Amino acid sequence: MRYAVLGTGIVGRTVAARLVSLGHEVVIGTRDPESTLTRAEYADWQAGQPEVRLATFPEAARYGEVLVNATGGQASIAALTEADSAHLDGKVLIDIANPLDFSQGFPPFLDPANTDSLGELIQRSFPGLRVVKTLNTMNCQIMVDPARVPGDHNVFLSGEDPDAKKTVRELLSSFGWTEASILDLGGIETARGTEMLLPVWLRLMGSLGHADFNFHIQGAHPAP
Amino acid sequence: MRYAVLGTGIVGRTVAARLVSLGHEVVIGTRDPESTLTRAEYADWQAGQPEVRLATFPEAARYGEVLVNATGGQASIAALTEADSAHLDGKVLIDIANPLDFSQGFPPFLDPANTDSLGELIQRSFPGLRVVKTLNTMNCQIMVDPARVPGDHNVFLSGEDPDAKKTVRELLSSFGWTEASILDLGGIETARGTEMLLPVWLRLMGSLGHADFNFHIQGAHPAP
Repeated sequence: MRYAVLGTGIVGRTVAARLVSLGHEVVIGTRDPESTLTRAEYADWQAGQPEVRLATFPEAARYGEVLVNATGGQASIAALTEADSAHLDGKVLIDIANPLDFSQGFPPFLDPANTDSLGELIQRSFPGLRVVKTLNTMNCQIMVDPARVPGDHNVFLSGEDPDAKKTVRELLSSFGWTEASILDLGGIETARGTEMLLPVWLRLMGSLGHADFNFHIQGAHPAP
Repeated sequence: MRYAVLGTGIVGRTVAARLVSLGHEVVIGTRDPESTLTRAEYADWQAGQPEVRLATFPEAARYGEVLVNATGGQASIAALTEADSAHLDGKVLIDIANPLDFSQGFPPFLDPANTDSLGELIQRSFPGLRVVKTLNTMNCQIMVDPARVPGDHNVFLSGEDPDAKKTVRELLSSFGWTEASILDLGGIETARGTEMLLPVWLRLMGSLGHADFNFHIQGAHPAP
């Protein structure tokens, strides 16, 4: 499968590397590739990932059969606008971003939140996309390797399109997520709930002193 | 210990009954006791719980050595205002309410949320209280009987006063919560995170079709 990962931060790089390791063709999208390559952290990673091609947002979006939104949540709409609707329509977008706003310091707040969500905002803004919100409730190392946290824990799905969700379930399965670990919450509106997990996640990281944890819904018995 | 449980809904009744079963003296507070007794649901319960005395908010608050806020989150400030600061100062308030606003239908939104929380609002409004937010992230049956959900799962603590937290830990322990299951997130500001778990909790209840589940932080290794 041809994947376009939008966003060159640690989340995008981690997902891109994992997709390559699974045999997929991966382009990673950024606003300005030349500028991105001047960031030592990115350049070092790119040197070790020669299979991943760095491209502009529109080039990446055109290339990808499935898109992954790993941009910062406050920059996602701008990135997708730049990617161009012509390259988005009909495609599955796996939205793993969170609309955290750190402009007022720590703790960040969410914008939007409560009566809206980034997942819904993206779906409304780009109605041709088939948005599935998932993986946004954990550290990126766990996203692509759930066994990193021993024991049972969960990943959530929110989205309107059953076929898109099926595509995402298959990808999650290839990452190591079991069927029982995937909890489908319903339509994209339910992304409000998973995005609103971030504040407690950040506090837990602070009080536990590490990020190798994940939410587990004890007592969940999803329909088979 | 003398407990005052503010709120006569299912949450307040469940906590009050459990406190009585543990040998505590319990008054349950309401705005208008006569009116509360005309509610068949309440009257039926009261008939089976003769040890619990129904009283006005100020009477209940004066009586209680420890207070439990089990009012609806949108009514909590009014209830505590009616209870009178003279009866609150210096006391521990266990805040198990959530500021869910159903006025626009389902799903409810939270008010306040994101940059504030009910826990903080109560602490700010009644600085003489020692507020500990806890138990607000699960069904009331599980609050008082965690073994109802098999396996490990967690309860969170937020608050400013270490002695108040110690009092609450002892109560949680008597309910059946193990030391390892109690995750202290820090100050009362962290109540934002736990209150913001409610939207996903409500969606999970919808998708699972039951409320016998709870959040478990898999991979949490709290300091011993």
